[in-house]
Amino acid sequence: MTTPLPTSAQPLSPLGLHRVLDPPGVLPQAAWRLDPSAAIARDEVRIRVDRLNLDAASYRQLRETYAGDPDKIRAAVLEIIATRGKMQNPVTGSGGMLTGTVQEAGPDSPLRLAPGQRIATLVSLTLTPLVITDSLARWDGLSEQIPCEGHAILFARSIAAVLPDDLPAPLSLAVMDVCGAPALTQRVVEPGSVALIIGAAGKSGSLSAAAARQAGASRVIGVVPTDTEAALLRDAKGLVDEIVIADARDPVGLAAKVQAAGGPADVTVVCVDAAGCEGGAILSTAQGGTVIFFSMATSFSAAALGAEGMAADVTMLIGNGYVPGHADLALGLIRTNPAVRNLFDRRLAA
Amino acid sequence: MTTPLPTSAQPLSPLGLHRVLDPPGVLPQAAWRLDPSAAIARDEVRIRVDRLNLDAASYRQLRETYAGDPDKIRAAVLEIIATRGKMQNPVTGSGGMLTGTVQEAGPDSPLRLAPGQRIATLVSLTLTPLVITDSLARWDGLSEQIPCEGHAILFARSIAAVLPDDLPAPLSLAVMDVCGAPALTQRVVEPGSVALIIGAAGKSGSLSAAAARQAGASRVIGVVPTDTEAALLRDAKGLVDEIVIADARDPVGLAAKVQAAGGPADVTVVCVDAAGCEGGAILSTAQGGTVIFFSMATSFSAAALGAEGMAADVTMLIGNGYVPGHADLALGLIRTNPAVRNLFDRRLAA
Repeated sequence: MTTPLPTSAQPLSPLGLHRVLDPPGVLPQAAWRLDPSAAIARDEVRIRVDRLNLDAASYRQLRETYAGDPDKIRAAVLEIIATRGKMQNPVTGSGGMLTGTVQEAGPDSPLRLAPGQRIATLVSLTLTPLVITDSLARWDGLSEQIPCEGHAILFARSIAAVLPDDLPAPLSLAVMDVCGAPALTQRVVEPGSVALIIGAAGKSGSLSAAAARQAGASRVIGVVPTDTEAALLRDAKGLVDEIVIADARDPVGLAAKVQAAGGPADVTVVCVDAAGCEGGAILSTAQGGTVIFFSMATSFSAAALGAEGMAADVTMLIGNGYVPGHADLALGLIRTNPAVRNLFDRRLAA
Repeated sequence: MTTPLPTSAQPLSPLGLHRVLDPPGVLPQAAWRLDPSAAIARDEVRIRVDRLNLDAASYRQLRETYAGDPDKIRAAVLEIIATRGKMQNPVTGSGGMLTGTVQEAGPDSPLRLAPGQRIATLVSLTLTPLVITDSLARWDGLSEQIPCEGHAILFARSIAAVLPDDLPAPLSLAVMDVCGAPALTQRVVEPGSVALIIGAAGKSGSLSAAAARQAGASRVIGVVPTDTEAALLRDAKGLVDEIVIADARDPVGLAAKVQAAGGPADVTVVCVDAAGCEGGAILSTAQGGTVIFFSMATSFSAAALGAEGMAADVTMLIGNGYVPGHADLALGLIRTNPAVRNLFDRRLAA
């Protein structure tokens, strides 16, 4: 297949600006319509898609709008993809991820992918050019998992991870979904430091705890909200040194319990999706320490004003889902740390 | 004056938990009612208050509620302070700051304040125990500046800055109001790096530009939205090396202009209060670089998802308003950098 001229007025762009048709000049995620042509540019990769995994909010909206009618839901998804050149629900704005096989990699692609490799995309469907060729005939419309045929395009700055042969695909996908948290945790935790993981029995929390340990933390404290979660964490032997059962939305109560468990922390990682955990995380962290917020429920202003109000000299990081090598790091933890593996297996079975 | 026993059930706390009356156990900022008794604990400081500066949102709410009637506004403020033991508008939740003179400093106070010093508080009125004794008789109710008599209490972890003798008080207050931004900028910028200041003609932006220069940035790029702001920045000679006029909400357009001006940046500081600047800041920053968000309009999720969607390996910091020594650093910049001083003087005169 020959390399085509870019199909929009834009020059080739690692972010895929040359695939943006409407409105011109915006980023692919913000675009109404992308060009999903199969011909790839020199720095692109084409994937033969076998499965879409719709974002939960997107699927729920479709199911509710069409009262659960599979034919109507299927028609709606096909219409979105045909119209927009990507699967971005116009109501929720959200996308999802996909799995597939590398079909062709341009000579200048930096993604180091080779034809035949089975991969998952780690960037959203909201910015991924996509064509469906089987009318989604094999999808029953009853879940967000869509078996399908078609192709998708990865840009130079897209992110994809090769699905490992030695792990079940659902496990790999669950790990990849949260792999930014352990990668950033490992980057920030220094040997000998005290790490505090709020939400330590969850997927991103347990991987972050394992990453903190691997980075040399002298003590890992895990916070969970209930006895049930504490039992789960206790069964994951060696994952944390101390288990604290506390309401992370109560700053004073949390900080006191963390103190009793060997805190305050040098690095605190917030992995729970509850709102209102900023104050507790800040107050449980030592002066000069760092808080990494991975919860999408984090309020920017609550964190900024909370730290100022407590005269807390803490570095506060917005959890970036992308850190180079994040998928490999997280898959490595799952392979080598039986406690995390056990915890994931139990969560996936539930 | 003798040191009293703490008046609530809580033990002495550097955060002032012992002054929280209702509900018990929460942080002073979250409390409905504080104990503003004049007697100080060993680590507290009492201030003779001469002026309150209400938060703009709080004053606007009061003025609108009472249709601008000065007597009613005055009565409402008095009622809030008498009921809550602090000036926290129950509708807006916001406070403001105060100025006054140190009356008594407990022997264990770490704030290094001495009786007679004129200070401004750098923590919010929302967490500062306060008593008013003159019925606000000298306040006309027509502005958020309230001349008054009374006292306020500072905790061990409160923040206050001595008002310098050599600068006009309004200038010092304006500088202290934004002093966290230059302090964090100076901490992050390394010698020889490229610094990008979005909103460089504003108060926090111009101080951050000066701080980046002082930290050894090899190039300081200032972004402003209009020709008028550009002219202001141009008159502040030497503050920035390059002036970029751009809409910071347009990621692609901003990044292209920053690139042409010598970018991408190693450190980007967002100092504009417009929403939607996350993508442009991330895209204008080099891989491995840092973005400091100081705008309260920053969306946590837009920053986190934006970076991931662009595979941007950037460190994203929530701008913490507290950095040790921040007021001194900012006042030092105002004294030694005529360009910043000139810009502040012009803004204050306007």
